[in-house]
Order: sequence, then structure tokens, then C-alpha cells
Amino acid sequence: MSLDQVLSRIDDDLPKATERLLDLLRIPSISTGPDYKAECDRAADWLVEDLKPLGIDAAKRSTPGHPMVVGHADGPAPDSPHLLFYGHYDVQPVDPLELWDRDPFDPAVEETEAGQVIRGRGAADDKGQLMTFLEAVRAWKEVHGTLPCRLTIFLEGEEESGSPSLVPFMEENREELSAPDIALICDTGMFDSRVPAITTMLRGLLGEDFTITGPSRDLHSGMYGGIAMNPIRVLTKILAGLHDETGRITLPGFYDGVPELSDGILSQWQGLGFDHARFLGDVGLSEPAGEQDRTPLEMIWSRPTCDVNGIWGGYTGAGFKTVLPSQASAKVSFRLVGTQDPGTIRKAFRHYLESSLPPGFSVVYRTEKGSPASQMAIDDPAFEKARQALSEEWPDPAAYIGCGGSIPIAGYFKEILGLDSMLIGFGKDDDQIHSPNEKFDMESFHKGTRSWARVLHALT
Amino acid sequence: MSLDQVLSRIDDDLPKATERLLDLLRIPSISTGPDYKAECDRAADWLVEDLKPLGIDAAKRSTPGHPMVVGHADGPAPDSPHLLFYGHYDVQPVDPLELWDRDPFDPAVEETEAGQVIRGRGAADDKGQLMTFLEAVRAWKEVHGTLPCRLTIFLEGEEESGSPSLVPFMEENREELSAPDIALICDTGMFDSRVPAITTMLRGLLGEDFTITGPSRDLHSGMYGGIAMNPIRVLTKILAGLHDETGRITLPGFYDGVPELSDGILSQWQGLGFDHARFLGDVGLSEPAGEQDRTPLEMIWSRPTCDVNGIWGGYTGAGFKTVLPSQASAKVSFRLVGTQDPGTIRKAFRHYLESSLPPGFSVVYRTEKGSPASQMAIDDPAFEKARQALSEEWPDPAAYIGCGGSIPIAGYFKEILGLDSMLIGFGKDDDQIHSPNEKFDMESFHKGTRSWARVLHALT
Repeated sequence: MSLDQVLSRIDDDLPKATERLLDLLRIPSISTGPDYKAECDRAADWLVEDLKPLGIDAAKRSTPGHPMVVGHADGPAPDSPHLLFYGHYDVQPVDPLELWDRDPFDPAVEETEAGQVIRGRGAADDKGQLMTFLEAVRAWKEVHGTLPCRLTIFLEGEEESGSPSLVPFMEENREELSAPDIALICDTGMFDSRVPAITTMLRGLLGEDFTITGPSRDLHSGMYGGIAMNPIRVLTKILAGLHDETGRITLPGFYDGVPELSDGILSQWQGLGFDHARFLGDVGLSEPAGEQDRTPLEMIWSRPTCDVNGIWGGYTGAGFKTVLPSQASAKVSFRLVGTQDPGTIRKAFRHYLESSLPPGFSVVYRTEKGSPASQMAIDDPAFEKARQALSEEWPDPAAYIGCGGSIPIAGYFKEILGLDSMLIGFGKDDDQIHSPNEKFDMESFHKGTRSWARVLHALT
Repeated sequence: MSLDQVLSRIDDDLPKATERLLDLLRIPSISTGPDYKAECDRAADWLVEDLKPLGIDAAKRSTPGHPMVVGHADGPAPDSPHLLFYGHYDVQPVDPLELWDRDPFDPAVEETEAGQVIRGRGAADDKGQLMTFLEAVRAWKEVHGTLPCRLTIFLEGEEESGSPSLVPFMEENREELSAPDIALICDTGMFDSRVPAITTMLRGLLGEDFTITGPSRDLHSGMYGGIAMNPIRVLTKILAGLHDETGRITLPGFYDGVPELSDGILSQWQGLGFDHARFLGDVGLSEPAGEQDRTPLEMIWSRPTCDVNGIWGGYTGAGFKTVLPSQASAKVSFRLVGTQDPGTIRKAFRHYLESSLPPGFSVVYRTEKGSPASQMAIDDPAFEKARQALSEEWPDPAAYIGCGGSIPIAGYFKEILGLDSMLIGFGKDDDQIHSPNEKFDMESFHKGTRSWARVLHALT
């Protein structure tokens, strides 16, 4: 079927598509508290209504939290490829409101030096992104009278509040949701404004929140200083021992399951010209902190990390108190890659910690769950087809990139539904998601929609 | 002059001496807030009146805070030895009041399994102690009609609130106060209930309160984890590097000025039979934390220390936040001995800290003052005379001991008045000073008074 006609239709329909997005953005579907429950419901209703003209049999599906929107559509033939599309209609809270230049739920198209932007809460995360897919499907339907493939639409309303209903819902509806060939997820970004991206690596996450106890009560350092072991001293020694001089993490077996990049990916990343001096300079730093023999992009995308996210103990108020505290605490997290196993690493960390405690010391853990990394199935030819399709739309070729953060949905799709995921998104680093004055570039919206038309054409 | 008559007089007068102490204890002379200003004044008046019958020309001397009580008395001859006596009449606050078994300012003699105790706030710290000296002087005066020596009495009312007026007062009255040969300070303890003690070493104290800053703002560990250096990681490495594997402090030059104990002191301490397993076991610990080649008593009395008294950084609330914080902070203190110089050690610490910071990191210090250690002049024959005198009163010979804490007064006497100090006191470890149900053993009060009579006799 003709792609060019679909692209023309998208171009012609851009004003109306923009109006539809602004309409959705006006609904304050903040998911993180009970105050906006009715608004989340209204956003789900809006989407159900928007999906119906596309020939998608959509319905609001209740959960203990905010509803899911699920819809199915036939393709041109019963054996057409079957894709699942995932996005989320809920948005982040808007505080601090005083830092917004406009009402976050009175969105508008603004002219800026860098071009038009759509400003409002959710513009980029994730309403603007999910609408790029729906607009591409709409144009296709209008041009061809049918969809390019079989489709399952799966939209969530709790992504910004930890997705408490997601796993139970997927487990209850496993049969219905596991039918597609692959899942498309639109909640990520471009490499930069010229280079579109398919995110093929997501780091996993393991947290440890713990308190070590030494003396049975706080002691005076005049009386006990020198003879009583100080829990803060013990803690700092344990934490300082987690990295060696080269930036490598010292836990035995920690690097088991950490893959080396293929030459193809390595050279593609070298070609991206990542300016790490600028990346770090923007936040007041200069030197990369990771393993000495790794490139900066490896450090943030494909290498595991260990960081202390919080530490506390003893007297922390104004002035001085010469106390030897009874306890010291920390929150430590590991970003995981490849097939690193959260359970194995938790065990290695705890063994290291406990074997570092002096006699009489004890530790209490406040359990945090762990999630493994996701590595997309880029050997699947669909990935190369999608990458070529994206490359045709944008100035520079598309890249397979990593993402330092954790997007659990891809892991759940694999684990619960057996589906591989392809993460394509059009966000930019300056979109200010989760912050005041969130925006989505008109270029992202327009070319994003065109990109999805190309990807659908390539995959079907 | 006869000592025996004085000791008998002390024995006979014990009931009345106890009444006098209870009377002084009834005055709630809490110095740490403005609420008890009049009561501090009243305690000073009480002491002035009590000193007069002893032939001591005492007066209340005003300061910007609570008054000093200063008095002078002639000795039997114009060239009699001249002693200065220091104590303090102010007391600690009494919170938490509900943990007291009686009104802290309605003191009484209680019978306990271990003998009679005088219970009430200030019983041991320091009203009971200072009255041991005054009662000894009173008995002497009553028996001999004269004092054993020339005397200067110097009583403070702000010891429990940081002594803000002390140094200015001593500087303004330098000539008057620097005339004595030596200062006697009664605010310390016995080694144990059989072994009286002269405290001959007081550790000094140096504090450093600081914050290191890395990234210019808090970062998300998904985006920056692995490439951005985490200030908590930097801080823990710096703090962990302050001790080596043997417990020794690693700052270059740190041990300059740390003296070795004489064989005499070492063998005296070995003879004390200090039970470090019990000392540590009482607070839930088992192994001494200090330098491997030092005895437990050295660790708390005569060796310098380094402790982290507080640490904080990143997210410390409930749950988890994968933040790479911009800052991390700590409060570090050093206990100093011998002639270790606070200024030199501060410089060494800061040099170590700053040379450990990665490029782009900075540090801000919140200045804390430092004070050197005090080492008493035990080569002065007066010390051995006093030790012999104490040994005659108690079951076991008196010991020269150290004190892990800092008692600044001895340093000020030396620095401002040029006076050496001799610290003799009769407190016991279970006196619960600064805590609810403070007490002073009747044995401490009675034999303490007799001890001072013996010391006065030996020194004059």
C-alpha cells in the first residue's frame, strides 16, 4: 500500500491533529494522588472515543487504580502482522506551579527561536508521543480504508505512579494481550534533534536500603572515642570499598552477565559524536566517573553502576555534638545490564557487607525490589527495518541507543506476555518532562507521526 | 598542724555538712537558659555567705552571663603556699523530668544496697564535689583557727552552658587570679570505687563540619549514573581513608607531638586491671577499635582519635529515590593528646580532603574551634605528694589517669593565668551526671572531704 499518500495526509491533517492533542492535554490526568481520579477516567474515555473512528474496538478496563484503555483492530488480512502499541495517558504532578509560564493544563502552540513547540503538562510525557502513533494509524485508515496490520492498543493510566495495576492486569489478561508479534513502546527519546533512535537496552535496578548498628546506644566520644568502633566509620569503609581505583565495582561475580557490545553497535555509537564534556559540563562536572577503559556512552547506557543515593547517621544539625552514634544508614542502588541477576547481586552485596561488619555489629535491610535489565532482540529483522524507516524521515540515520534508566514495561512484556519490545520515541533532552514548562516540539509531533507511518509500512 | 584533728572534725560534722549540701542542691541553678537566671544568682549568694565564716573574703562578681564567685583568704603566714580552687555551681537541665524518681531539686539522702547516696540534680556535678573542698577548709579553720595556706576560690556559674564568660573574666582579672602557685579543680572522677585518681591528661578536640559539592544540581541516576561522580562516593572514600588497617590515623604528621607514656605510668595503668570487655560489653560492643598495638586504656586516655560524628547526603526519607545528590556532608572530630597542634592538624585534614576531590568538586567548611590537649605537670613534686595523700584515705593507691573528654578550664588556667592544674575528684561512673536521678555517694562526699584535708596537709 502507498506510503506517500499516508505521509501527505499526515502533513495536511497536522492542524487538526494538533487540536486533538491540545484537547487531550487539557485533561489534568495526574495519577499520583486521589484528587484527579475523575480526570484520569475522563482521559481514558477521551481515548476510547478517539480510537473508535480508527476501526479500533476500544474499551475502558477497570483496575483497582486508574483504568486501562485496550482496543483491538483487524488488519487487511487475517494473517497480517500483529503489533501491540503501548503508551500512557497519565501525567506527572505540576508543582511547583509558580515556575510555569502558563497554566499547565491550558496548553498551546508557542513560537520559539528553535521553532514551534506544544507546551503543557504531558505534551512529551506521554500524551504527545502516544498521539504520534494514533495519528499515523488515523491517516493510514483514512487513506487506505483499512489498517496496515492487526493492532492491539494498550494504554496505561498509572505509569507516573509506579504502575501498581499493570502486572496484575497483564497476568489476568495474558491470553488477550500476548497474541501480537511484537510490542511498540512510545515513551523514549531521540539521540539528538537530527538522529532518531530505537532504544535497545534498558538498565535494570536493584536497591538496598539498610541500617547498621554497633553500640547499643549513642556514646560520648570523650568517654568512648578510640576504643568504641563507630558505625559511620564502618559504613564509609564498606561503601568506599564498592569501587576500585579504576572505577570498577568490586563485588565478586558482579560482572557476570555483562555483555560486551558488538563491533557494529560500538562503531555506531562512536559515530554519534556524543559530547560528554558538554553533557557533564551542563551539570558542573568535567571528568567521567565510570570504568577507566569504557567510553562515556557505555558508562550511561551499557555498563552497570553502583551509587549511594542516600546516607545518614549521627548528629546532622547545626553546630557540633561529639557523639559516636549507635547506627548509620544508607540507600545503595545498582543499575544492571545484560543478564545480571538482581537476586545474585543482592546476595553478593549482602555477603560483602556482612563480612565487613566488626564483631557485635548487625544490619537490618528495608527490602527494595530489583528488576533485571532489558536487552531488545535486535537480531530480529524487524529492528533493522524500523531503523531504515526512521532514517528516511530524519536528517541523519537512526541509531540503536541505550537508556540508563529503567522502563519496567519492556521487561513485563517479555516476562508475562512473551513479547519482545521495540522502543521508539521522539522526545528531546530539553523537553522538561516531570518539570515546569514541559513541551513537545512540533517537529517531534509531526515527524514522529510520519515516522510511525514509515515504521508501520516497513513492518507490515 | 595536726591532720588527725581535722579528719575527726570532718567525721563529726558530716550530718551538718550534708545538710549544707542539700540546702545548696535545693537551688535550681540551671545555667543553660534565661529562665533560671535568678536561681543562679541565688546559688552564688549562698556560696558567698558560706565562704565568709571560713575567713574567705568572697564576693559575687558580675559577668554578661551568670556571676562568678571569687574569694581570697590569707594563710598562716604571708609566704604560705597559695592554692586556687575551681568548681562550678551551675547544673544541667533536668529533662526528661518523668524519668526522675524524685523532684530533682528536692534532694535527699537515700539508702541503697551499695550504701547511702545524696540524690538530686548537681549532687555529683558539681555542687557535691565543690563542697568536699569547702567542708575540708571549714574543718581546718574550726580546728586550727586558720587556713592551711593562702587560698583563692574561683567558682563558675556557666560550666554547663559552654562557659561564655570565663575567658573574658580571666583576662580582665589576670593579675588577681594568677597569683596562686597551682590550681585545684574538683570536677572529675575516681578510677573506680577503691582507686582515687588525679587526672593528668585531658584530650583536646578539633572539629571539622563541611559539605562537598559535585554536580551543580541533584541528578537522576538513570540518566547520569555511571558517568557522573557521586559526592557520597567521594565523601565515603575520603572518610574511609582516615584510618589504615591497623586503626592508625593516616594524615601525614598527625602523630607529631603524641608522647609515649613513661614506664611508670604504663605499669601503673596495667595495675589498674581495667576490664575493657566489660566496658565495651555494657554498650553492646566486644573488640577495641583503636590502634592494634595499644592497650584499651591508652585508646581512651592517651591516644588521639578521629571520629565521624555525623554524615548526611542524598535522599534519606522512606522508600527509594534514585538520586545522585549534588552534595554530601560530614562532621568529623579529632581528640588530641600531648602537644598535637589543632591548627596543624586542621591544615593536614583539609589538605588531604581537598587533594582527594575530583576535578570540579568543591568544599565549604563551617568553622569549629579547636583546643589542644592538657598534660599536667606531674614532674612537680606536688603531684606525688597529693597522690600519696589520696592513697592514705582510700583502700587502694591513687592513680594518675587520663580523661578522654575535654575539660577546657585546665587549658585556660595554663594559657591565661600561667597556672598548672591538678584535677582531683570523687565522682563515680554510675553517678548519672547530666541524666535523671543524678547522685553522689555519701562515701564520695565524706571521704572526698577527708581526702582534701589530707591533700591540703600534704601540699602546705
